[in-house]
Formats: sequence, C-alpha cells, structure tokens
Amino acid sequence: MNHRRHRIATIPGDGIGHEVIEAGQEVLEAAARKFGFSLNWTEFDWSCDRFQNTGQMMPEDGIDLVREYDAIYLGAVGWPTVPDHVSLWGLLIPLRRELDLYANVRPVKLFEGVKCPLADRKPEDIDFVVVRENVEGEYSKIGGRLYEGTPQEAANQVAMFTRHGTDRIMEVAFDLAKRRRKHVTSATKSNGIVHTMPFWDERFKAATARHAGVETAAYHIDILAAHFVLHPDWFDVVVASNLFGDILSDLGPAVAGSIGIAPSANLNPARKTPSMFEPVHGSAPDIAGKGIANPAAAIWAGAMMLEHLGETQAAEAVINAMATTLAQNETRTADLGGTEDTRQSVAAVLAAL
Amino acid sequence: MNHRRHRIATIPGDGIGHEVIEAGQEVLEAAARKFGFSLNWTEFDWSCDRFQNTGQMMPEDGIDLVREYDAIYLGAVGWPTVPDHVSLWGLLIPLRRELDLYANVRPVKLFEGVKCPLADRKPEDIDFVVVRENVEGEYSKIGGRLYEGTPQEAANQVAMFTRHGTDRIMEVAFDLAKRRRKHVTSATKSNGIVHTMPFWDERFKAATARHAGVETAAYHIDILAAHFVLHPDWFDVVVASNLFGDILSDLGPAVAGSIGIAPSANLNPARKTPSMFEPVHGSAPDIAGKGIANPAAAIWAGAMMLEHLGETQAAEAVINAMATTLAQNETRTADLGGTEDTRQSVAAVLAAL
Ligand SMILES: CC(C)[C@H](C(=O)O)[C@@H](O)C(=O)O
Ligand SMILES: CC(C)[C@H](C(=O)O)[C@@H](O)C(=O)O
Repeated sequence: MNHRRHRIATIPGDGIGHEVIEAGQEVLEAAARKFGFSLNWTEFDWSCDRFQNTGQMMPEDGIDLVREYDAIYLGAVGWPTVPDHVSLWGLLIPLRRELDLYANVRPVKLFEGVKCPLADRKPEDIDFVVVRENVEGEYSKIGGRLYEGTPQEAANQVAMFTRHGTDRIMEVAFDLAKRRRKHVTSATKSNGIVHTMPFWDERFKAATARHAGVETAAYHIDILAAHFVLHPDWFDVVVASNLFGDILSDLGPAVAGSIGIAPSANLNPARKTPSMFEPVHGSAPDIAGKGIANPAAAIWAGAMMLEHLGETQAAEAVINAMATTLAQNETRTADLGGTEDTRQSVAAVLAAL
Repeated sequence: MNHRRHRIATIPGDGIGHEVIEAGQEVLEAAARKFGFSLNWTEFDWSCDRFQNTGQMMPEDGIDLVREYDAIYLGAVGWPTVPDHVSLWGLLIPLRRELDLYANVRPVKLFEGVKCPLADRKPEDIDFVVVRENVEGEYSKIGGRLYEGTPQEAANQVAMFTRHGTDRIMEVAFDLAKRRRKHVTSATKSNGIVHTMPFWDERFKAATARHAGVETAAYHIDILAAHFVLHPDWFDVVVASNLFGDILSDLGPAVAGSIGIAPSANLNPARKTPSMFEPVHGSAPDIAGKGIANPAAAIWAGAMMLEHLGETQAAEAVINAMATTLAQNETRTADLGGTEDTRQSVAAVLAAL
C-alpha cells in the first residue's frame, strides 16, 4: 500500500484562529504518525489583517489557489476593526459558495465531563447532527435599499431556494441518518413564510419518499428551537435551511454545553472541491494571543477532516482522545471551568492519543 | 367616577382555543366584579371550521367588524385539515396586519412552582420580555416560484424592512425597558444577512441615541439563541424582527418552562385599533374537547388585556392569582405534571383571586 499523503490548505484567519489551528495541527500530526499517513500543510494569510493592509480578505484568485488541496482547515474569521459583513462575505462565505461546499455538517454531542446547562441530562440524551444548507436560502446579497437616509427608507433581502439546492441537502441528511439512528427532522416555517418554506416541505416529503426506512418529523423553527431545550433526545439528524441551520447549530451546542468546542464541516459531498473544516467559535478578540483558547473545537473539526479524507481510524482516535481529556476534570481550559492553557490542553490530548 | 365598560371581541378559533377562552373569560369576569368594571363579550366564529363550511376563515368585512371593539381576545388558529399557511394567512396574520398591531409583546418569566428545564435557575434569573416586530420583515407574501414542478424549480421570498416599521418597534422596546430594568438587547444577523440586518442595526443605534439611560447589547440570532439557554439572566427587553422574534418567543418560554402558559399581546401602541391578546400555544388537536387544556396562557393573556385597557390593579390581581396557583403543587394541569382539568384549574385561580 502506498504511503497516504494529504495536502491541506490552512487559513488560520483572525484572533485565536491562529492558536487553535496550530494546536489542531499538532494533534493531527501525531495522529498521522500513529496511523501511517502524512499531512502537508500550506498556510494562507487571508484575514482581517490582510484586509487592513491590502483592502482584500483574500487575493482575487484565492479560490483557485486552494482548489487543488485535499481539504481546507480554517481557524476563525472576523475582527472588531472590520465590519462583519465585509470580512465574512469577503472570505468565509465565498469559500463556502465558490467551492460549492453546500452541506454544513455540525455534530451536537454531550461529552462526559462537560457541564450541561440542562437539568438531568446525560451524554446518551444529546447526540445529534445539524445538516445545514450552506450556499443558498436566506443568505444572499440579493436585495438592497430604497430612499436611503430618509424617513421613507426601506431595505429588502431575497431568500432563494432551488430544487437543486434543496434536494441535495436532503440527500446528505438522509444518507447520514442511514449511518446513524435513521431519523431525520426538518426545520420549517411553512405557516409564516409563505413561498420558500412550503416548497422546502414538498422537497422534504419527496426525499422521505425516496428513503424508505428512515423515519421523519417536521417542526416549525420556533417550536423546534423550544424542543432542542425540552427534548434534545428526540433528534438524530436535523436538516435545515442556511439561516435555520445557523441558529440551530449554535443552539444545539449551547444545550450540550459545547458552544466553545463545536466543529463545523463544510462539505462538497461529491468531492469535486476541497471541503473545509472549522471550529464554530469565532476569533475571540478578548482572549486572542493569550494562549488560553480552548483547542477542542479545532481538534474536533480536524477529526472530521481526517474522516473526510478517509482516515477513519485516525479520526476516531482523535475524537476519543478529545473525549478522554474532556472527561478528566483536571484537563480543562478556562471556558470549561478549568485552569489549563492551550498548550497544556494539547499535551493532554496528545497523551491520550 | 363612571362605571368602566370594555367591549371585547372574542375569537375562540380552533381546538382548545374554545376551552381556554371560556376559562379566561370566567377569570376576567371575576376580576371585573372585584375591581368594579364590566366586560361585554361578542363572539366571532372565525376558524378552520368556518373555512371548511364557507371557504373563508373570516368574512370579507371581518376586520371592520372587530375594529369598533376595545380589544380582541383570541384562542388559537389552525387545524390539521386546513393547511397552516391558509388558516394563518386567512385569519391571524391579517388581523395583525390590517389592524396594524405592529408590536408583539411576549413576556418570559420563570414562576415559582414551574419546573425549569435549566439546571440551577431560580425565578429571579428569568424575567424578560421579547418585543417582536409583528407586521413586516421576513413574513410576507412577496415572492413566488419559477419552473414549478420541474427540476429547475426555484422559490423565493422577500423580507422587507422599513424605517417606519423598524423605528416604531424600537420605540416600543425602549419605552418598555424604561419601565423595567432599562436594558434592551437587539437580535440581529448583520454578518450573514446583508441588506436588511445592517439596516436593522443602524435603526437600533439611532434608537439607542434617542434613549439616554437605557443600556443596550446586540447579538447575532445564532449566538443569542445560545445565550437564552446559557445566560437567561442577561436579558430585560429583547427587540427582534418578525421571524427572529417568533423564534425567541418560543425559545424563551421553553427555557422558563412555560411554553404551555406563555401569552402574547399584539399591540397597536397608539390605540387607533383594538389590540389583540392570545395564548402562544396552538389549538392542540390531540387534547381538544377533552376539557384538560391548561388555561394559564389565556388567563395570562387576559391579564395583559386588562392592563392594556387601563385596569392595572385587576391585571396585577389576575397575574398574582395565577402565580399563586402555579406555586401550589396540587393545582396543576397535566402539561405541568399535575392532574387537574381546565375547570379545576380555573376554580383554583378564582379562589386565589
Ligand atoms: C402560527 C404562526 C404563523 C405564528 C407566527 O409565526 O407568528 C405563531 O408561531 C406565533 O408566534 O404567533
Ligand atoms: C459568521 C457567520 C456569517 C456564520 C454564518 O452565519 O454562517 C457563522 O455564524 C457560522 O455559523 O458559521
């Protein structure tokens, strides 16, 4: 068997993005050595820093530069001195769109040793995945303003859903459910949102018909958010539009006590482009550069990257090492109530690995 | 002083709407007797039943019929045999829009005796109000489909925000905050939604400048939903667009264990039209007609109606009676873990009153 080699583009981005990507690389390198493959890293300095120096978050041909890699490992994008919609629509969102990373997969899991904000919930109660449509829907630059700066001012924004985009995200959700507990929940709002959400419901029904053996449920987003708190044990795979998935994939980790450690996989399931893996957390300007950021989200995102690259055993080993360290009360960063810094936390994961 | 008389239009609607409105009327009548005013009730049969008999949820001139009342007391709208977007856009939403009930005020409160799904939270930790824009924003019939029924099918939906609509909901939120703990939180998504939400942020800033002495915060809706679970004690008044307010005003009550008892006031703050008061819960087809529905949401909504009608003392007395019964472990309906039916629950509130 040939030695397996994976070429990874890293984009540390802003703030603690640097610290956690470095930490993640260290863990992934150790896994690579252990499981006999190698990772070649190429770093790109795309960030708010770069924007302030050059006026661009990434170069004109940025997307083409990363297209040839096997995967992208992203830290965090955003800094207080650059408006969010500038930095995100200048880097994160074009990466998702132009590489057609249409499936955003975000696991929600209560780990042993992590404090859950809900009363009486155990690890077996919270273990689901939010599958978020990642390139169309409510996120769009379509729209604008009229009568700007006057009392008559009005702004509009168009949400666009295509059958192409909706059907393929349903496929991802149902396929994933088949490898899990065979249940898919759809997040809808067809009672209040008249055009796009009834359409979403139809495509969910069509997908249900294509996938015998998978049980389904559908809830309006308002009550679904409530159920995340009241009945997190009801969920296996939750499929949602771009905006609803965004909300649910922060709410889910909050409920599981893992808002600081949640990972996000931006996938092109057909593997025509490199998929991108990132922590859900942001650049955390308040603690950036202090060396105290929790690297767990980046490590978990790294494990998802290994899994996507076909390194299933290594991926499992990394997740298990992370779970072991989380379960040990002594090895925790400040955000989880511990006293460790990033380096100590990485050392603990490496030891467990 | 003249005898005060308030004319109320009741719309029980569907399912348990009938049971809870009747229960609420009984409690409000008792309060009226005690505090020396009278309530004149006129009932309208607008509902899914009516739709199935006549093809219309309400008559053509429905809105004009209720315009002359002092307030509207609504049960629940929706039934499985009628598509939600038909029943709701045929009754609930036109009432909100055509009467210009632009402020949807939804209190979130953890009552003594109510089981909170969060660990270690006490009544003083959860006491805030969601102020939701109720007539514009993401809820619209603007949009449609192209290539219907083909692989190229696409649907779109336009969210519309006006300065008029945004500024006036901000006013309601800041005014309310001044009568409470002087803090307003804005729900935004200006990093992902490019046109309407940056506009929302600007209007929030403008409102902040007009209201010295009120502290403010703003969060993107994804992390805000997470904070509802992790830090419900951060909030006093939360101002949100139509869709975000819809989500937050189900999530809030879920967090406070009060999803079945949450009320909703649809206000025209200028009092040019009758404001409308309703429970947040739906028509509950599974328990409709059994006489076991929890009347607390309708009673709480009734108290908000009394408050709006200027019967402040009576409103307080009703809320207190409700709080007392909730605190008594014996007097609870099944949804709160008790064994009482609607009648027993009403009797307990009447006794406390
Ligand atoms: C029934 C539905 C249209 C309605 C809404 O979304 O406004 C409900 O959820 C509410 O919050 O009153
Ligand atoms: C930063 C923001 C644009 C982004 C999103 O809304 O997609 C983030 O919240 C996420 O979930 O990855």
